[in-house]
Amino acid sequence: MQQMSGGIDRLTAEQMDRADPLAATRDRFALPPGVIYLDGNSLGALPRGVTERVAEVLEAEWGRDLIGSWNTAGWIDLPGRVAGRIAALIGADPDEVAVADSTSVNVFKLLAAAVALRPDRRVIVMEPSTFPTDGYVAASVAQTYGLELRWCDPADPLAAVGADTAVLSLTHVDYRTGRVYDQVQITAGAHAAGALMMWDLCHTAGALPFDLHATGADLAVGCTYKYLNGGPGAPAYAFAARRLHSDLSQPLTGWMGHAEPFEMRRDYVPSAGMRRFQVGTPPIIALSALDAALDAFDGVELAALRAKSLQLTSLFIELVRARTDLEVVTPLDPERRGSQVSLRHPAAYGVAQALIARGVVGDFRTPDIARFGFAPLYLRAVDVWDAVEQLVQVLQDEEYARPAYAVRAAVT
Amino acid sequence: MQQMSGGIDRLTAEQMDRADPLAATRDRFALPPGVIYLDGNSLGALPRGVTERVAEVLEAEWGRDLIGSWNTAGWIDLPGRVAGRIAALIGADPDEVAVADSTSVNVFKLLAAAVALRPDRRVIVMEPSTFPTDGYVAASVAQTYGLELRWCDPADPLAAVGADTAVLSLTHVDYRTGRVYDQVQITAGAHAAGALMMWDLCHTAGALPFDLHATGADLAVGCTYKYLNGGPGAPAYAFAARRLHSDLSQPLTGWMGHAEPFEMRRDYVPSAGMRRFQVGTPPIIALSALDAALDAFDGVELAALRAKSLQLTSLFIELVRARTDLEVVTPLDPERRGSQVSLRHPAAYGVAQALIARGVVGDFRTPDIARFGFAPLYLRAVDVWDAVEQLVQVLQDEEYARPAYAVRAAVT
Repeated sequence: MQQMSGGIDRLTAEQMDRADPLAATRDRFALPPGVIYLDGNSLGALPRGVTERVAEVLEAEWGRDLIGSWNTAGWIDLPGRVAGRIAALIGADPDEVAVADSTSVNVFKLLAAAVALRPDRRVIVMEPSTFPTDGYVAASVAQTYGLELRWCDPADPLAAVGADTAVLSLTHVDYRTGRVYDQVQITAGAHAAGALMMWDLCHTAGALPFDLHATGADLAVGCTYKYLNGGPGAPAYAFAARRLHSDLSQPLTGWMGHAEPFEMRRDYVPSAGMRRFQVGTPPIIALSALDAALDAFDGVELAALRAKSLQLTSLFIELVRARTDLEVVTPLDPERRGSQVSLRHPAAYGVAQALIARGVVGDFRTPDIARFGFAPLYLRAVDVWDAVEQLVQVLQDEEYARPAYAVRAAVT
Repeated sequence: MQQMSGGIDRLTAEQMDRADPLAATRDRFALPPGVIYLDGNSLGALPRGVTERVAEVLEAEWGRDLIGSWNTAGWIDLPGRVAGRIAALIGADPDEVAVADSTSVNVFKLLAAAVALRPDRRVIVMEPSTFPTDGYVAASVAQTYGLELRWCDPADPLAAVGADTAVLSLTHVDYRTGRVYDQVQITAGAHAAGALMMWDLCHTAGALPFDLHATGADLAVGCTYKYLNGGPGAPAYAFAARRLHSDLSQPLTGWMGHAEPFEMRRDYVPSAGMRRFQVGTPPIIALSALDAALDAFDGVELAALRAKSLQLTSLFIELVRARTDLEVVTPLDPERRGSQVSLRHPAAYGVAQALIARGVVGDFRTPDIARFGFAPLYLRAVDVWDAVEQLVQVLQDEEYARPAYAVRAAVT
């Protein structure tokens, strides 16, 4: 295993790990033995402490203290507390973030709010390469409010933004390629056209710094089950800049967004700020898991997180280019790269499956992408080195062509 | 404690419990000692097995098997499996129910679907005494689609339904009074006017039988954290009769409602049936807790559940009327009564707080209602007897007037 490859041998990777200022955060996760997990961009690993926290919520807060826990355990404030922790990771103030519902539902709420803020503009602009749910929901918002959904050229989204544009909505890190938009330049361009700017941070938060304040973004949305490690189907978040709060409205006017939910009034009066993006009764068990998971970020500098992420993706790219002839779809320029690397192969599904059989868990994105995510809190340079070693074997032996890897599973 | 009261002494209550065919289901719950829990209509007690199931999901499925659990642990089908179990409790077929999001979000989806099914009708009718979130969301749906929300007289809702009415939406059991609507007669009346009928079953499912097929209902919604014991903020459900499925559309077009979510197509194609009411990535931890919780209903006949519920509420009413002068707000006619009893007192908040201090947990509903829910799976006749004994003490000593009980908590 100490063989040379592309000028970097495994010993060098080990040395990188010894010098890693984030080396200690790996112990904050319960990682299964024998697995190199390169799919944290789809479902982050289980942080230690989550199981214990959830058990406490179930047995003591729900089981023993029952309904009283809404007050005594602070359940009613849990969405706000978690929102504050996420705000710190995306350059927002605590009261500018709501944690509620799913990304899809929050895209609906935010886009509806956006078009209501620009009633004289009739167009929502989005890139066709967005994660599909954003596009599906944007199309529905456009249909619901009698507007147009305009697809932009992902290489030049501002070209589609004009005086008719209410909001430009882009995903900061492309889920398929890992390409990163220049958030400052694009936000400024949208504003210059009088449009609002909304960012989907699903593949950003927890791996890349994104300063919503510095960017001047108006709206943002994201999930918490990728690099934030909140667990499968964990609650999502929504951001709106405070300067917009007094005029913000959204159509999912559930009781938890009411200014006085327990007064049981007949008419809806929205709560101040982002609390009006709360809808139904908050999912306490899932929120508690997420809250405990966020402990993994305690004391972590976002700049160090980004440096580690780029170290890992750069090493992976360098080794792949040295040892295989696969096309690297992800930008080679670190500035333009998220925390994932995507490789093109005509049998990409088989490549991903053969790697999983070898203990290297990445995933497949239709039609021909094998995708590898690098969660900087728990991956090491040696993991990258070992993963590429396995990839080389899969390619050399053409394992991807085995019949067992031909039939796609229900979830890919 | 064996004193007589209203002709029924505690020994008689004990005899009722010995003859109770549902006596054994109490052991399916982890009930705290020293507490008589009469708030299962707000948050059901913790069923045994939930903690173990959730720990398994966290440690083995998420922690060890990671992303693969979408396939290997069947996460992707979990919403459908849970939907099938809830369907059995509300007289629906498994594919007529979706488990997703919150009640509020599902009210939005279903009312939007309803008005799209009746494009020539411009009115949503709802009772003003509904749980507020239904009304808030209905008002938003009306505003979004340019319709009218018309409040009906709760005593005669059909009087407000006419040729202009797209949908009549009622809550089967009034959350404040426990009054039950005649679901067959009202559904038929709505249909006679050409309107769709939607039922909110939040205070019904798990305590009262409700046969959606026999009723002929079109749509229904409900939460799972009350009598279904799914845990705080557990996912909600939505029902639509199969005869409507081919024409059903709803505006929250997230990827999990797509016919082929993992093909990542740009355009939304709704899945068949109720799967199109799925929106975002399903909340696996919460769904697993709910799935385990529903084990408590295994082998339980709904008729026996209703008989037990009425035995408990009738006993409570009889004892309250014999031993106090409180007004019973809930209908005395068992046919018109849900599984709760509400009492009126000018210091109802203090009454509820004084009882909680004595280990009898009910709750308060503004302005003057002390509300007691009777979860038939885990409550006994002796619990009812003991609760009334404590109530009598609270009233005799005017404990409700103590200053400590004057300040309302954040959540009531």
